[in-house]
Amino acid sequence: MSEKKISSAVIKRLPRYYRYLSELLENGMDRISSQELSRKMHVTASQIRQDFNNFGGFGQQGYGYNVEVLRGEIGKILGLDQKYHVIILGAGNLGRALANYGGFAKRGFIVSGIFDIDREKVGQKISNIEVLDMSKLKDFVADNTVDIAALTLPKGKAPEVAKELAELGVCAFWNFAATDLNLPEGVAVENVHLAESLMRLSYNIVNLHKD
Amino acid sequence: MSEKKISSAVIKRLPRYYRYLSELLENGMDRISSQELSRKMHVTASQIRQDFNNFGGFGQQGYGYNVEVLRGEIGKILGLDQKYHVIILGAGNLGRALANYGGFAKRGFIVSGIFDIDREKVGQKISNIEVLDMSKLKDFVADNTVDIAALTLPKGKAPEVAKELAELGVCAFWNFAATDLNLPEGVAVENVHLAESLMRLSYNIVNLHKD
Repeated sequence: MSEKKISSAVIKRLPRYYRYLSELLENGMDRISSQELSRKMHVTASQIRQDFNNFGGFGQQGYGYNVEVLRGEIGKILGLDQKYHVIILGAGNLGRALANYGGFAKRGFIVSGIFDIDREKVGQKISNIEVLDMSKLKDFVADNTVDIAALTLPKGKAPEVAKELAELGVCAFWNFAATDLNLPEGVAVENVHLAESLMRLSYNIVNLHKD
Repeated sequence: MSEKKISSAVIKRLPRYYRYLSELLENGMDRISSQELSRKMHVTASQIRQDFNNFGGFGQQGYGYNVEVLRGEIGKILGLDQKYHVIILGAGNLGRALANYGGFAKRGFIVSGIFDIDREKVGQKISNIEVLDMSKLKDFVADNTVDIAALTLPKGKAPEVAKELAELGVCAFWNFAATDLNLPEGVAVENVHLAESLMRLSYNIVNLHKD
């Protein structure tokens, strides 16, 4: 089943399912029907069944899905059954926010290094991790497993640092800089372009009362 | 033309065009053809023309588009010809990052208030704006124009604060909390779910070498 090409729209929706199933589990719910999940998530039940059918349907038996099993299956598809070592480039407010957010570690994303060029920040500890000078980046990547680099650098800096890291073998980038990285094939990039997100919001404000 | 229903996929792409056109303008470029824009943005020229045709095509004449005019037109569609007053709920690292980012003000998004419940943060200044106690929120919204509320609150708190703000007339939310807000119709919500973004990245890492 993993050989079948899944549409990116389905993939985009999977983390939301995972989030809801995690909450259900925290609230002690064992089983859920697609109808109930549909009501909670404000998605049609047929959409849910269609999405899940891409992965064989996750065996809905009797009354609905087993929440823990379903969460586990979706987690596996999302690669959450592995650990990822994350370095953060840039120890500004955004870098700090990422380093301090406990939810990432819970899902297997472990921050193992934080880098900055600012002498005032180098040597500080964030979430028990010492901020290292950018000049140490190359050696760090050579000596440690780095699965993901989170870039909270200025847009003028991010592409060159990403290129250097990709050449050193880092193959996944979580990019918060307001620019495209233009990295070679075989590298995964997830962009979080906050300014673009804000523009979509202003579009929606302007168009709220047009219908 | 503004009466025509534009697909959300096109709307999602507009901010990226806006970003590229802003950069071209900063670099002193007056005109650009769809072919050149296509090369820069790694999007097909026919995609660009199709997207622009939703808005009447933006009158490509002679050699390509006038960059400044095109940027202005797209900016108008995105509602960037107006100013927006933004309040930030939560003065943690993420709230600070948003308040300090100069790029937002440049596009007309003006942070006019920051709120927190933490006594250590209340009274501090971020980007020259004093952090106010959450108890002052209601009066602030009554006395000031608030177009957008950015929520950097814990997920357990965000929905109730959003509901309260919506009842006070705030009709746009930029939500960073890892939960859905479930607000009534007539309210615009733009979610930035960082944990979900990270899961899409891990999915891509796992599937990088499968093709």
